[in-house]
Amino acid sequence: MVKLSEIGELELIKRLERIAPSAGPGVVKGLGDDCAVIEVGQEILLMTTDQMVEGVHFRSERTDPAKLARKLLAVNLSDIAAMGGWARWGLLAAALDGRTDLSFWETFTQTLVDQCSARDISLVGGDTSSSPGPAFFNLTLIGRADVGEVIYRSGAGPGDLVYVSRFLGDAAAGLVLLENQDLDLNPADRAYLLDCHETPLAEEELGPLLGASGLITAMIDLSDGLAADLGRLADAGGLGAEVDLETLPISPQAQALAGRLGMEAEAWALGGGEDYALLFTVPSSKAEELEGLVRRRLGREVRRVGRMQARSGLLGRKKGKTAPLNIRGYEHFRP
Amino acid sequence: MVKLSEIGELELIKRLERIAPSAGPGVVKGLGDDCAVIEVGQEILLMTTDQMVEGVHFRSERTDPAKLARKLLAVNLSDIAAMGGWARWGLLAAALDGRTDLSFWETFTQTLVDQCSARDISLVGGDTSSSPGPAFFNLTLIGRADVGEVIYRSGAGPGDLVYVSRFLGDAAAGLVLLENQDLDLNPADRAYLLDCHETPLAEEELGPLLGASGLITAMIDLSDGLAADLGRLADAGGLGAEVDLETLPISPQAQALAGRLGMEAEAWALGGGEDYALLFTVPSSKAEELEGLVRRRLGREVRRVGRMQARSGLLGRKKGKTAPLNIRGYEHFRP
Repeated sequence: MVKLSEIGELELIKRLERIAPSAGPGVVKGLGDDCAVIEVGQEILLMTTDQMVEGVHFRSERTDPAKLARKLLAVNLSDIAAMGGWARWGLLAAALDGRTDLSFWETFTQTLVDQCSARDISLVGGDTSSSPGPAFFNLTLIGRADVGEVIYRSGAGPGDLVYVSRFLGDAAAGLVLLENQDLDLNPADRAYLLDCHETPLAEEELGPLLGASGLITAMIDLSDGLAADLGRLADAGGLGAEVDLETLPISPQAQALAGRLGMEAEAWALGGGEDYALLFTVPSSKAEELEGLVRRRLGREVRRVGRMQARSGLLGRKKGKTAPLNIRGYEHFRP
Repeated sequence: MVKLSEIGELELIKRLERIAPSAGPGVVKGLGDDCAVIEVGQEILLMTTDQMVEGVHFRSERTDPAKLARKLLAVNLSDIAAMGGWARWGLLAAALDGRTDLSFWETFTQTLVDQCSARDISLVGGDTSSSPGPAFFNLTLIGRADVGEVIYRSGAGPGDLVYVSRFLGDAAAGLVLLENQDLDLNPADRAYLLDCHETPLAEEELGPLLGASGLITAMIDLSDGLAADLGRLADAGGLGAEVDLETLPISPQAQALAGRLGMEAEAWALGGGEDYALLFTVPSSKAEELEGLVRRRLGREVRRVGRMQARSGLLGRKKGKTAPLNIRGYEHFRP
């Protein structure tokens, strides 16, 4: 007998992708990207689902239900943003122990409804169940995108520049803080990093802007670390990539914490999950235009971290030398 | 501190319905029916989500993963059928203990994919996670319906006849058998009742036929027993209903088991969940036409079980006398 833990999440997903037909009524793209892309009449819909499980994604004794609701929404919003679209409708499934405080549920649902309403997302369906133990929350989001503006993981070409939308590794640094409450760090840095972990923000403005720009070739959201997610984007395009390790965008706060621990923050940037930044590729001829667009429209900078290559595999470049990037991102079922 | 178990599932859902806005972009009907009804361009979409939790909906040590996959699909298909539509796309979220056998996952997913493919449903999205204990499965289905053929829980008028699509209480009887393996019953009856519980069939043909017929006024699927679900349909229309207890359609198999236990199968029909038959209402002037249509098109009979009334509340009629039906259906969180 083989156990799931011997196989790991990535292999499980691959096996499911192998058996699920990729074509079907209205299916432009099924499994294998951040969202499914569905054609309904003249319209394009994006569909995604993401769960948060007590004891895996959060621990209820230290979890603020409002933060949990925001994060559950954000991780789903991030998938929709990564296709260049925006969310419109949501369905929530929740399983909870009967001994759970009603106030936990009420704060969770009120926050979710408020956060949805602020974005013109309607919570239109749900299912509640008791649970024999851990709490389980699953949100499905259905969004829209303009025809021709959907961005896939595939699509990058050799030589395209690789960008990320913001600092990397802050969520991983926040998790270290959460699990080591006695770590010494100044209160502002601590609050910033904890926020990055507990209430990440999806790139809801940037995603559709990039989708509509006509300047990018591929996109994915960073949920499992730069190495894992760039690996996925590269695989989807049949390419490889080189990461410039000396210019990885790392926040001063993550650097401060790494310094306190006597380690390099680079490990969080490459292998830490839950950043929910966007990772995207741009032909080098359009890089300047892209950077200018984001600066002009959103008043912010996107950060170049590497370059796609025809040869498969991920390389890291440091001090003029390259070496294979052997960093595994977060994977469920793996010990 | 108030616990969820003191409130119960119905009150939890009511509270969520109170805070979630009922209007939004494209929202024809949000929370509060079997599916959400969404308008996308000229098209109508139906959306529903349902979960199965280990230790609540099934026990893995006695659960065949193929049956579990069929049931998870059926309970969602039933919600779509109850609106008069048909399913097109599905998203699966699963959380499993890492010690789970890979063969459980493979049989589950292969069955789900096969069952979906047989119906032209595409499995287009998913999320896998480890679980610290019980397994959770959540399926979201998105379906279609023809404009003007969507049937809601509301819509019944006083005097409309109440129909169910098939025998009631078989799933509840099957659960009794499952939990009391040494009960004496003939093998064919046992197999039939266990099947009704373990692999219920959704009314995938009947639902769209009724939706398109123009003859019915309201519909709901029977997931929590006739009393609970008829109560919901009546509430949605601001009405009450009277159930004819002497003509409840009860299978010979359920009657045989009830006889063996020295009880009335009526209790299973009224209070037992998971039948996934359809419950619908028909103006009395159209009853004959409706019965004829179903007979002609599907070669089967639907069963009349009562009548809607202007006065709220549920009554049961037996031997010419009526009395309030005080039967509570299945409700999560209630002891």
